[in-house]
Amino acid sequence: MKFVGRLERAWASSGSLLCVGLDPDPARLPAQLARTAHPLFEFGRAIVDATADLVCAFKPQIAYYAAARAEDQLEMTIAHIRQRHPSIPVILDAKRGDVGSTAEMYAREAFERYQADAVTVNPYLGQDSLAPFLGYADKGVIVLCRTSNPGARDLQDVDSGGRKLYQLIAQKAAREWNANANVLLVVGATYPQELGEIRAIVGDMPILVPGVGAQGGDVAAVLAHGATAAGTGLIISSSRAVLYAGSGSDYAGAARAAALTLRDQINQYRKPGL
Amino acid sequence: MKFVGRLERAWASSGSLLCVGLDPDPARLPAQLARTAHPLFEFGRAIVDATADLVCAFKPQIAYYAAARAEDQLEMTIAHIRQRHPSIPVILDAKRGDVGSTAEMYAREAFERYQADAVTVNPYLGQDSLAPFLGYADKGVIVLCRTSNPGARDLQDVDSGGRKLYQLIAQKAAREWNANANVLLVVGATYPQELGEIRAIVGDMPILVPGVGAQGGDVAAVLAHGATAAGTGLIISSSRAVLYAGSGSDYAGAARAAALTLRDQINQYRKPGL
Repeated sequence: MKFVGRLERAWASSGSLLCVGLDPDPARLPAQLARTAHPLFEFGRAIVDATADLVCAFKPQIAYYAAARAEDQLEMTIAHIRQRHPSIPVILDAKRGDVGSTAEMYAREAFERYQADAVTVNPYLGQDSLAPFLGYADKGVIVLCRTSNPGARDLQDVDSGGRKLYQLIAQKAAREWNANANVLLVVGATYPQELGEIRAIVGDMPILVPGVGAQGGDVAAVLAHGATAAGTGLIISSSRAVLYAGSGSDYAGAARAAALTLRDQINQYRKPGL
Repeated sequence: MKFVGRLERAWASSGSLLCVGLDPDPARLPAQLARTAHPLFEFGRAIVDATADLVCAFKPQIAYYAAARAEDQLEMTIAHIRQRHPSIPVILDAKRGDVGSTAEMYAREAFERYQADAVTVNPYLGQDSLAPFLGYADKGVIVLCRTSNPGARDLQDVDSGGRKLYQLIAQKAAREWNANANVLLVVGATYPQELGEIRAIVGDMPILVPGVGAQGGDVAAVLAHGATAAGTGLIISSSRAVLYAGSGSDYAGAARAAALTLRDQINQYRKPGL
């Protein structure tokens, strides 16, 4: 099944647009995990099992595993999601971008080694750098468009004849790159105005929205500017605000409570008036 | 010692601007390595030892190791260069780009886990995405500016008020991002005209130039447009044309011969008339 189909099923079955990002920072893990053989995996597994019924996707961030020399624990975490929660898509947050045979290797890393359902990619190198990812027609290719950080303005807002760079990317994503109907975009929650502009360009294309929670994005504004007519179209991702909601022995319970609050907050704005 | 200082020493001691890129494609490795426990490492080590006196840097490409689940062999390869050829800087080609604490993790991956002397990064997310890398003042941060592939034009040539995006990046690299004097740029050999424009913007800032050899970049044009007045300023990188010069039992000898030819070809144009 194609990634967008899997995602639509997950939206429907979970009743949630929330995605929990798995960014396991060794310095912030609960103390009781320090002595385990695979602390990043144990942490991720506990968070996954505590929140699985509340989410439409999980998004492990590879950098945390790579810095800790723990790619094996990323593999274990994804395998756990696959086995125990097979209906929940896994988005590998890797933001890869390279050319030719190197891009092929990165696509292989994401889709074959890690068996991710989708991967985030950086479009700066252009269409041919995306092609090896796009060739996996059943996988999702989630292209950075307008990121959530302050520095996003430096290049992404460069204006060329009244069209900003992020608008150009949205246009190319919708018109040039989406022959396999497997392109999605990343637009930060911290820029709801831009999210609305991009939604107008890309129709119902799903958009991954990081930046709610710790980064301060406003849920009401994200829904108002980003949701499709069906009240979906968004993968609203939160990492730290969920992962580190508690640091004691019941950190998983605290994460669940934070995810539940966020899911309900999102759903409150999905259908105004309910 | 700062990275640019290390690089200048390597240029002087080797008499070479050539960098050999280590892109070990499992499908192209010599048959005799197939049965070894660490074929990517054995291949890299043989190439390194056969070409070490001909180069100013080695540039392992992390994607090949990641796709093969062989990060350990990348660590072994870099450790080998450190031990046996300590004067040769190691550039980790990773093209990372992310924000906040994730960018910190990628910087840690490159500089602490792999102990690279420099890393390539993608600037699309803006200044704050580069800051964690730039904070390692003794390490080199090599920012993608104008890449060597055909699709480079898609975004990098976007024109804003007469200034193209790659020119803006060169300006920011020289004026805003280089407080620690540790910024370099990537400019593909396939675009010598643009290389000349960028050289005019960044003064003597070193430029990593991939795309000679297999990608067809013209050495004479690269030197004419990219060299500094001192006849240096360039790290001219070749991967496949060196690595796969031969496929038989003397693949390392064939790689050395190809590297020697390329080094001499480069040097021929460094000081016209010699």
